[in-house]
Amino acid sequence: VPERIRHALAEPPPHHRTDAFRATLRGVTEALATLHGTQGEVFTLAASGTGAMEAAVINLMAPGARALAVVGGVFGQRWADLLRAHEVPHEVMPHAWGTAPDPAELAARLDADPDLAVVFATHSETSTGTLADVRALARETRARGRVLVVDAVTSLAVHPLEQDAWGLDVVVCGSQKGLMLPPGLATLSLAPWARRAIEGQRRPRFYFDLTRARRGLATGDTPFTPPVSHVLALEVALAMLREEGLAAVHDRHRRLAHAVRAGGLAAGCRLFSSAPSHAVTALEPPAGVEAAAIVRRLREAHGMVVAGGQGELRGRILRVGHMGAHGHDDAVAVSAALAECTAALGAPVAADAAQAAREAWGAA
Amino acid sequence: VPERIRHALAEPPPHHRTDAFRATLRGVTEALATLHGTQGEVFTLAASGTGAMEAAVINLMAPGARALAVVGGVFGQRWADLLRAHEVPHEVMPHAWGTAPDPAELAARLDADPDLAVVFATHSETSTGTLADVRALARETRARGRVLVVDAVTSLAVHPLEQDAWGLDVVVCGSQKGLMLPPGLATLSLAPWARRAIEGQRRPRFYFDLTRARRGLATGDTPFTPPVSHVLALEVALAMLREEGLAAVHDRHRRLAHAVRAGGLAAGCRLFSSAPSHAVTALEPPAGVEAAAIVRRLREAHGMVVAGGQGELRGRILRVGHMGAHGHDDAVAVSAALAECTAALGAPVAADAAQAAREAWGAA
Repeated sequence: VPERIRHALAEPPPHHRTDAFRATLRGVTEALATLHGTQGEVFTLAASGTGAMEAAVINLMAPGARALAVVGGVFGQRWADLLRAHEVPHEVMPHAWGTAPDPAELAARLDADPDLAVVFATHSETSTGTLADVRALARETRARGRVLVVDAVTSLAVHPLEQDAWGLDVVVCGSQKGLMLPPGLATLSLAPWARRAIEGQRRPRFYFDLTRARRGLATGDTPFTPPVSHVLALEVALAMLREEGLAAVHDRHRRLAHAVRAGGLAAGCRLFSSAPSHAVTALEPPAGVEAAAIVRRLREAHGMVVAGGQGELRGRILRVGHMGAHGHDDAVAVSAALAECTAALGAPVAADAAQAAREAWGAA
Repeated sequence: VPERIRHALAEPPPHHRTDAFRATLRGVTEALATLHGTQGEVFTLAASGTGAMEAAVINLMAPGARALAVVGGVFGQRWADLLRAHEVPHEVMPHAWGTAPDPAELAARLDADPDLAVVFATHSETSTGTLADVRALARETRARGRVLVVDAVTSLAVHPLEQDAWGLDVVVCGSQKGLMLPPGLATLSLAPWARRAIEGQRRPRFYFDLTRARRGLATGDTPFTPPVSHVLALEVALAMLREEGLAAVHDRHRRLAHAVRAGGLAAGCRLFSSAPSHAVTALEPPAGVEAAAIVRRLREAHGMVVAGGQGELRGRILRVGHMGAHGHDDAVAVSAALAECTAALGAPVAADAAQAAREAWGAA
């Protein structure tokens, strides 16, 4: 979390029922809409990303309506878990972990089952470091009049995401990744044509009732106490993204990802995903080295926190996150540290990982 | 929000899946249990207080089970609204706004209707500045084997609250009042004997599913990303409450409330509540003066933010909040400012409001 944002968190929070705070919230909402590439509504919620995912399910699913969850990792599975928890009749379209979902397969599933009204998918699947082509998925859903909901928690402000131009009906996002805030604020945005998708009889809803939130959206009022300090910090984060320029932010993440991949490969690891995202690089350790040992050594010898595998990938991969305020030197440093770890743990290290990262940054 | 707490918010947030953060969360959870006076479980949620209220409803109400909402203001009404939103069969026990609910009436309602399994009540009703005797309510619920849920959002760390000793099955709380944090963290605590109250078939639940949260409670793990910075800040807030001493914190709030009431009376206002809380003082303006005019002048001429009335009290009262980090000088200052406003707005001011506040502080 950058210092400027942390300073904003430390400001004396204004009362939320003041004109000054309402103006701040309206400004943040407009800037978020720009960031999402939408002319539609953006709702901010006091919750983490999963709260916004639940908000999508309970606000979109009419009684009896059926859904399709696209599942290729822990966060895709979360959509299926949410649908089950809310007793939404649904199908699952599984795809191999570490691969992107196939738009043609989605099209076939939708053609075979015209009652699948809403499709839930994941843009950047953090558990596998994989990016889905949600623009291609949206072509299929839009052509068939279905609603597409995209979890963009780890893709917004990392990868390009053009909600309206790509035809994404609903996008959910959290604060603690590309937006560089601590966790505690989540957003849900509705494309302009999807405005009515939350109206009518839906799942029981109150705290996450978006029709209630809509009433105050234009004035900067919220039905329940908003996360005031996070909104102030988000204002700063959005200003930082504007100052850098969104294209430059995406460019930086692309270079970061390419550099870390090259560094990881030079350190003897293999890339887990066949469609790697720019948010997280998932690496399989060199033969004979345990992923958990690399994670531990990175923390203990280098002071770097990377994640292990989740779900069925537990013990099989490590995941280097590079969303948010990271740059060239971070990519080089983590690459060098990775190579030190794999070498210390007995793997042959083929190349200078730091140099590989530097070169990939330049070439990306 | 005190400076020490704001500094904690500005610290670089640790990743939540680290031993250091898990230890912090466990420590905070234990300190909260002490603060609630319970040997039971305390769950922290990334949400505002209403989220924790919804968590209570969906985790406690089995299909078909009936509830009773005790309603004497906006926040009591919120219980009824939540029950309706979740299609929980329920009754309402209304009591006049500005009065405390009558335990004998509750007993009669419960005797007349043995199927009212869960009672939802409000400890400090912020919309009217009224305190309920939840200990007396709990005597009636406990004697009849019913579950009592208490909204303590604006009473915890203001008024004494002894969850286990008083027999309160469930207590919900938010971060932004007595706990002195910005909004964004809420808690729900279960008395030790109420552990099973959230088990079995319940309302559909996922983000707020406490059985899921329970699995990680002992280790400091949370099912979804916790509000990391708020947890760090809460650690500081709980340390501050311990340093001052909880009895001294309650004593300070009692003096604050008495001082503001005396100041308000000296300024020509009348006390709205017949059972005033120490969290908020609700005042009716002097005859011929509009409440909104006082609120406006306090803000514009004195830089003080007080609230107007909510719901059916809109335009009829003003509400001076004095939860959290306030003291003698604040009570005197707001009293003097109130008197300046009422005098400027044409009301006869009977006495020296600052002096009245000082005397009441000493005598309370």
